[in-house]
Amino acid sequence: MSKLKVAVIGCGSISRHRHIPEYAANANVELVAFVDPVIERAQAYAEQHGGKAYADYETMLAEVKPDAVSVCTPNAVHAPASIAAAKAGAHVLVEKPMAVTDEEAEAMIIAAKENGIHLMVGHNQRFMPPHVKAKQILKSGVLGKVLTFRTSFGHPGPDGWSVDGANSWFFRKEEAIMGAMGDLGVHKSDLIRWLLEDEVAEIGAFVGTLHKQGTDVDDNASCILRMKSGAIGTLVASWTYYKGEDNSTILWCENGVMKIGTHPDDQVIVELRNGTVERHKVGAISTNEKQLSSEVINAFVNGILSGGEPAVSGEEGRASLKVILCAFESQASGKFITVNE
Amino acid sequence: MSKLKVAVIGCGSISRHRHIPEYAANANVELVAFVDPVIERAQAYAEQHGGKAYADYETMLAEVKPDAVSVCTPNAVHAPASIAAAKAGAHVLVEKPMAVTDEEAEAMIIAAKENGIHLMVGHNQRFMPPHVKAKQILKSGVLGKVLTFRTSFGHPGPDGWSVDGANSWFFRKEEAIMGAMGDLGVHKSDLIRWLLEDEVAEIGAFVGTLHKQGTDVDDNASCILRMKSGAIGTLVASWTYYKGEDNSTILWCENGVMKIGTHPDDQVIVELRNGTVERHKVGAISTNEKQLSSEVINAFVNGILSGGEPAVSGEEGRASLKVILCAFESQASGKFITVNE
Amino acid sequence: MSKLKVAVIGCGSISRHRHIPEYAANANVELVAFVDPVIERAQAYAEQHGGKAYADYETMLAEVKPDAVSVCTPNAVHAPASIAAAKAGAHVLVEKPMAVTDEEAEAMIIAAKENGIHLMVGHNQRFMPPHVKAKQILKSGVLGKVLTFRTSFGHPGPDGWSVDGANSWFFRKEEAIMGAMGDLGVHKSDLIRWLLEDEVAEIGAFVGTLHKQGTDVDDNASCILRMKSGAIGTLVASWTYYKGEDNSTILWCENGVMKIGTHPDDQVIVELRNGTVERHKVGAISTNEKQLSSEVINAFVNGILSGGEPAVSGEEGRASLKVILCAFESQASGKFITVNE
Amino acid sequence: MSKLKVAVIGCGSISRHRHIPEYAANANVELVAFVDPVIERAQAYAEQHGGKAYADYETMLAEVKPDAVSVCTPNAVHAPASIAAAKAGAHVLVEKPMAVTDEEAEAMIIAAKENGIHLMVGHNQRFMPPHVKAKQILKSGVLGKVLTFRTSFGHPGPDGWSVDGANSWFFRKEEAIMGAMGDLGVHKSDLIRWLLEDEVAEIGAFVGTLHKQGTDVDDNASCILRMKSGAIGTLVASWTYYKGEDNSTILWCENGVMKIGTHPDDQVIVELRNGTVERHKVGAISTNEKQLSSEVINAFVNGILSGGEPAVSGEEGRASLKVILCAFESQASGKFITVNE
Amino acid sequence: MSKLKVAVIGCGSISRHRHIPEYAANANVELVAFVDPVIERAQAYAEQHGGKAYADYETMLAEVKPDAVSVCTPNAVHAPASIAAAKAGAHVLVEKPMAVTDEEAEAMIIAAKENGIHLMVGHNQRFMPPHVKAKQILKSGVLGKVLTFRTSFGHPGPDGWSVDGANSWFFRKEEAIMGAMGDLGVHKSDLIRWLLEDEVAEIGAFVGTLHKQGTDVDDNASCILRMKSGAIGTLVASWTYYKGEDNSTILWCENGVMKIGTHPDDQVIVELRNGTVERHKVGAISTNEKQLSSEVINAFVNGILSGGEPAVSGEEGRASLKVILCAFESQASGKFITVNE
Amino acid sequence: MSKLKVAVIGCGSISRHRHIPEYAANANVELVAFVDPVIERAQAYAEQHGGKAYADYETMLAEVKPDAVSVCTPNAVHAPASIAAAKAGAHVLVEKPMAVTDEEAEAMIIAAKENGIHLMVGHNQRFMPPHVKAKQILKSGVLGKVLTFRTSFGHPGPDGWSVDGANSWFFRKEEAIMGAMGDLGVHKSDLIRWLLEDEVAEIGAFVGTLHKQGTDVDDNASCILRMKSGAIGTLVASWTYYKGEDNSTILWCENGVMKIGTHPDDQVIVELRNGTVERHKVGAISTNEKQLSSEVINAFVNGILSGGEPAVSGEEGRASLKVILCAFESQASGKFITVNE
Repeated sequence: MSKLKVAVIGCGSISRHRHIPEYAANANVELVAFVDPVIERAQAYAEQHGGKAYADYETMLAEVKPDAVSVCTPNAVHAPASIAAAKAGAHVLVEKPMAVTDEEAEAMIIAAKENGIHLMVGHNQRFMPPHVKAKQILKSGVLGKVLTFRTSFGHPGPDGWSVDGANSWFFRKEEAIMGAMGDLGVHKSDLIRWLLEDEVAEIGAFVGTLHKQGTDVDDNASCILRMKSGAIGTLVASWTYYKGEDNSTILWCENGVMKIGTHPDDQVIVELRNGTVERHKVGAISTNEKQLSSEVINAFVNGILSGGEPAVSGEEGRASLKVILCAFESQASGKFITVNE
Repeated sequence: MSKLKVAVIGCGSISRHRHIPEYAANANVELVAFVDPVIERAQAYAEQHGGKAYADYETMLAEVKPDAVSVCTPNAVHAPASIAAAKAGAHVLVEKPMAVTDEEAEAMIIAAKENGIHLMVGHNQRFMPPHVKAKQILKSGVLGKVLTFRTSFGHPGPDGWSVDGANSWFFRKEEAIMGAMGDLGVHKSDLIRWLLEDEVAEIGAFVGTLHKQGTDVDDNASCILRMKSGAIGTLVASWTYYKGEDNSTILWCENGVMKIGTHPDDQVIVELRNGTVERHKVGAISTNEKQLSSEVINAFVNGILSGGEPAVSGEEGRASLKVILCAFESQASGKFITVNE
Repeated sequence: MSKLKVAVIGCGSISRHRHIPEYAANANVELVAFVDPVIERAQAYAEQHGGKAYADYETMLAEVKPDAVSVCTPNAVHAPASIAAAKAGAHVLVEKPMAVTDEEAEAMIIAAKENGIHLMVGHNQRFMPPHVKAKQILKSGVLGKVLTFRTSFGHPGPDGWSVDGANSWFFRKEEAIMGAMGDLGVHKSDLIRWLLEDEVAEIGAFVGTLHKQGTDVDDNASCILRMKSGAIGTLVASWTYYKGEDNSTILWCENGVMKIGTHPDDQVIVELRNGTVERHKVGAISTNEKQLSSEVINAFVNGILSGGEPAVSGEEGRASLKVILCAFESQASGKFITVNE
Repeated sequence: MSKLKVAVIGCGSISRHRHIPEYAANANVELVAFVDPVIERAQAYAEQHGGKAYADYETMLAEVKPDAVSVCTPNAVHAPASIAAAKAGAHVLVEKPMAVTDEEAEAMIIAAKENGIHLMVGHNQRFMPPHVKAKQILKSGVLGKVLTFRTSFGHPGPDGWSVDGANSWFFRKEEAIMGAMGDLGVHKSDLIRWLLEDEVAEIGAFVGTLHKQGTDVDDNASCILRMKSGAIGTLVASWTYYKGEDNSTILWCENGVMKIGTHPDDQVIVELRNGTVERHKVGAISTNEKQLSSEVINAFVNGILSGGEPAVSGEEGRASLKVILCAFESQASGKFITVNE
Repeated sequence: MSKLKVAVIGCGSISRHRHIPEYAANANVELVAFVDPVIERAQAYAEQHGGKAYADYETMLAEVKPDAVSVCTPNAVHAPASIAAAKAGAHVLVEKPMAVTDEEAEAMIIAAKENGIHLMVGHNQRFMPPHVKAKQILKSGVLGKVLTFRTSFGHPGPDGWSVDGANSWFFRKEEAIMGAMGDLGVHKSDLIRWLLEDEVAEIGAFVGTLHKQGTDVDDNASCILRMKSGAIGTLVASWTYYKGEDNSTILWCENGVMKIGTHPDDQVIVELRNGTVERHKVGAISTNEKQLSSEVINAFVNGILSGGEPAVSGEEGRASLKVILCAFESQASGKFITVNE
Repeated sequence: MSKLKVAVIGCGSISRHRHIPEYAANANVELVAFVDPVIERAQAYAEQHGGKAYADYETMLAEVKPDAVSVCTPNAVHAPASIAAAKAGAHVLVEKPMAVTDEEAEAMIIAAKENGIHLMVGHNQRFMPPHVKAKQILKSGVLGKVLTFRTSFGHPGPDGWSVDGANSWFFRKEEAIMGAMGDLGVHKSDLIRWLLEDEVAEIGAFVGTLHKQGTDVDDNASCILRMKSGAIGTLVASWTYYKGEDNSTILWCENGVMKIGTHPDDQVIVELRNGTVERHKVGAISTNEKQLSSEVINAFVNGILSGGEPAVSGEEGRASLKVILCAFESQASGKFITVNE
């Protein structure tokens, strides 16, 4: 079998830490092109992994004709780059949020369908062992129905993560469109939908720029969610958790509680009304390189090679994005927004 | 000095666990009357502590003419009983929520003023050592400004706490008016106002009856708050935390985070950006009886005897109540509600 | 529904701690007679719970005609008392080991069948939450096939447990027939059969009296077992674990290990080859009276009332006994003994 | 003093991790030759440490005439290589099991005696600090007589340890003769003999190949031992502890229990009947290079240089081997085997 | 054998908690008299245990003629009461400090000798399991010579311990003569002498009344000691450790350190230079009544009955007292004092 | 601004670990010269950091004319080198003890004043986060007055720390003058003065050479201190804590206790009489390079550049030295020595 020729569009931190090394470690993949407006970044990867460097993706798509692309650009470019790739016949793995408007997301799905390509959205939280285990427990029924929940994602902001530090595109509204909500909030809207196998019915949100200087994207959001099932809960995204970082979810259910990501050693803890407690250590997984990976790239490659459904489809990415977009609408209108009837 | 003659109106759990034993332990107090429609309850206390038993407070006020009363009735009776007591010249300690409408609260304040009596609201969270310590740290300035927060209060519901179990007035809307929000939420609106020395500017809330059977009062509420200072956060009240009980508050600030009530041994934990961590064990306080008490009764008695301002004034109680009332309004209207401009 | 009339034959420690209080707590049961050659013991229970006291079970059966009996006598009396009760039409719950020879066990099963009564053997280990949980995990298949195991039960001996201390029947060979193997070993042969859903194929055993004075019953046994499935392991029973008491079982399987009863807080621990660890706290179960009970008495009563199969049948008790009897035969013959082909 | 000229016969994992580096670190030793049928392995060590490389030990012994050799070959070669070395006048350190039959072991002892050389068997467990400490405590008498014990050694098998992985000689019966019993079981027969200063009187064993594929050597053994003193216990060796690895020994004694290797921090724990507990942390020994070594090589070199008795004599090695050989005989015959009268 | 007739002179806290209950629990003792100037206290014990009550010991000795007495009076009465008892032919157990001057101590020893009675001083620290274990380890030689040490005893003062609270004789100089040094310091001078089997050669001390009000006895002392062996160290006694109570001793030796009483669970910890650590849990000793006792009374009674040497002789008590007296002399003179040449 | 030209006099361990790397990391400093009689050491640093190497400081001062110097020589050279530097117009940072007699210290202060240079003494304990936090707490008043204390500093001696090992100048009396007291004791006299803002009034000390071989400098000192405030306590310095190393200070105060450096995780622990406990983790400070430094060099450079007072003045260094000198005098005279009236 010949290898899948993959191009990476956008060479920032997410490419450096996840996409490029995971493609490089995948025996079925050949990295054939790297794209970044800062051409030196693209060239550095080309030297390291082979393939060519480009400053723009149109030229790359035309010249290289890759089998598949990862779209790791600033948010505003997710849709145009993905659609261009789809039209060039390339399978697309696009980072989250998959787009910055619902229309864009819809257009991406249509483009994928029309061009017969595999479109996957990079919602990596679904692949993390604690979340996989949590879903498995929920489905076992031991906890009964979820009644109320809390899910949050907060860290000190992309200043310390991005390759450009405080000058990152994350802080430029025209490129990022969204701040903490696009970076972190969409992870949690996707997680809660997937975990509960439920849809957000209605949302209320306070979204604002509370502390980051020189930017007008949101650095904090506090939201309330009502699910179709009737469960209610809170969803929080923050770039100003300078200490007390948090990527946790707690589900209070009819028969007890499930705590995910609240304890450093035991990533999933179930406490039942009958007094039993189960502690699951699923994340501190030794030296097995594959397990330390995000699993997203492998899922994308396997999906293409097996001809199966995308592990996280465009429809799923669109639904999770819509929750976030409605949060902004709530903030703007002072009203709760109906996400799904 | 002759002792303060105190009558207790309402002989349910809060009287049993807090008001009656703490009055009995206070050397400056004489318990002179107990009131409860279930007259046997009142009689049992009268036998134990002296004083007379009554089935209604009007008769008691007329016959006993107490110096002071505790109002520990169902929520709907808080205002009428307090106003009657004030008119009878008795100082009033009223349980939270002080009333069930803002108009009632205002009338209570006016009645207190007109009759020259001391009106205090029983917001005991302000007196708990972890909260006292937390406020002291916040005021020291070491953490800088509060940016975002989370405060929640959840337990399995009053079924297990009330002297009447599942038949408690807590579940009867005409007496309780409010459920978890009146029982627990108002504690947290009061706490966050007092701790931050800030006012709630705007609130959005999902309030509902998710799991308790045979009642139409709320058993869960998820709220978002915007403070006058600009800080945003979540406030949660729940009667369906069957496991995973929680009375915690986390404040993410400019210089670090303060966690209150999140750790069983160390009730207040401060983690600063410079790496220092302070752990305060303030609550597991040995055998000193006074410190194990709620401090509310002592504060009330001392306030009366010293002629000072009430430790928790009617105005404070009214402001904390208003946050809760606006939450219900938000739920009803589908809009955010402006609490204070 | 009229209550089940139950008589308890034998009023030693197992009756005191388990049978009598659990019958007393069962709403469907009326205790009607107590039998013990030390008549004062029987009388004391009769005074406490009602019913009559007898020194011998034949008289009791004839006079009282109970619906059901518990046989809690020394081992040598298990079979004759059970058969007598069966012939008197009483359902029988017999303590373990159900008999002291395989022929006796067979006769008991026949007597039960012929008289249409419910015969259950008191193998309480099957009802303990850690064992219930362990079996559930094994059946889920996550661990794969059991390859090798270790199961042991050791404590300082019945000197400290029996109502007669060092003068207990446990040390008199004519009444006990077996020592640690009858007391503890049969628990483990039953557990391993039930847990693995497998039968012991072959056994080798060293059984002896190593330390207890003035007795010729065994105080220690070290056995090796080969199961029908091919798994091999060790089974140990001891009355001389003066410290380091142990009632644990470890199963090494294809995909990892399960440790039962090795950790004071987490009664079942599963460690998989892929690095995940699950810790189950199932035994420290709060105040729920039913769960603190052995469950054996309730299972017996429910079995009778529902007309279902015995929770632990005579056939099961016989098979677990046979393992122990073969261990003695191995010790005597210096050979491995085939238990089941 | 001129240095001791040492040759290493067999360049697999045990040479790599223990013999070669420990000889290299010993100031009184000069490494003069390395022997391995895979000549590249021998050459690599010769390049690193000086000396010559050989494919067979006869040539080496003839040409190099070493003062001493380490025999680190597959089990089947232990005896012939040792005898050849002895006849060439070289002192011999032979890995365990020292031979694969009792006759071979006897021949080695005779060859050593006739040629006046120092013969030592590499039973390194005797030198481990926890075992040294355990023996010291046993000899102090504080625990009284050992009554019953459990000793086991299990890991996932040599697939992960050997330089040849799953293709290792460990799995080839003609070279290994024995599997887990020769690799691990003999460690424990030696340890229990040495620790208790007692001899195994009788053994019963189930030995089999339960899970390893493509091999007919044993991967599991469950044994029962009766000591001359009367103590009984179990001895287990396994290559299929894929999790739950174990190299522990527990001794239940008249006055309490000693647990060796059961706790990660405290390698020897003594619990007495009078309530005292002693915890000994003897193994996590800082940076002292000598203590991190096996001590075997130093003991061998010191024994030669001082002219003293071998630290672990051929007679000792033979006795520990005999226990293992009898285990195989028990498995084969279905009987207990008398090891020593 | 007829029982030993014992009288207790002084009925304060030490009698209540130790002497009286331990005599009462000793099968060889009959309590025949209780003496206290507060006659009600003596009468209460007489009612409880039998025997007679007296307000003064002379009358008691004359009338009752006890076989033995415990002297539990204020310090100043230790010598006169002990000498009177000795002259009356009674064996004497005297509390520490045995006297308030060296001359008194000498006179007591002489009186005991002349009257042929058994004189023991109540230095209970010698009998505590951690100290017994520590001495045993020191004598084993594993630690080598003691080089330097620290021993201290501090608590919040006798205000909370004495039956008379802040009005205790402990604070009245004419009765107590010494404060913290007599109460606590003499425990530590005795312990260090006994533990090291060494004598104090020279002492320097700051002794003063730093915080207790209305008393002129010492509440704090900081001392330096030079032992005959050359070891130096500090000895501290304090009645103002309002938190951070301490009864610990650390010995830094040639081969490592021994920490006694520094850890709540492990009362004796030995850390050697070679990296080994031994932790001894000897004090949390279950329900064995004898071990929970001070052992002092049993040692006294056994000494008398066996006719052996006193467990803590008058000479030993005198030597430990002398250290304390020299500390006062050092404080007074501004010089180091030679205790023993 | 041109950089501060700094010369380092003495290139032993303290220069290697603290002075040289911290100057090198300070952007306002240029290292211009290194002085050591072992010229190779000086040359090695010159090669690494630029600047010149010298064998004696006089030549260096004359040729290089540095702006500032660090004096890191043996103790006996501290004063002459500092005075020479001052006369050459260089600012001086001198290691502790600043001198070996009080007269020298006075002369250094005068020389600094006369030459208008900045003189700082390297008492780094004042800058350690636990001590900074402890002082802040003491000044808050929460603990009230310090009543008694214990401060000690012990390790296995400079044999393991010095670049010359056991041949270090630390053991040569003519260069070191003082041993453990000059190395460690002066840290604690300085700390206790600074922490309590109090002066030592009187001292008694046993100082001696107990275990180190081939040296006549002190390896142990046990001292008692009386402060001007009346507080008393112990101060210990030792080079023979072969295990049980200790750099801790405990202050028992009117309202509770403060423990500094007694717990590995929480460097400052405050326990109050009212039951509250505060634990401060201030030392394990992440990756911030500046905080891991001693802060001494930065304080020196900042002091010079800002023209402010020295962070630790000559007067402070002199007062802390005087305590140590009086300890030696006490040992010599057998008397307590008045340090300050």
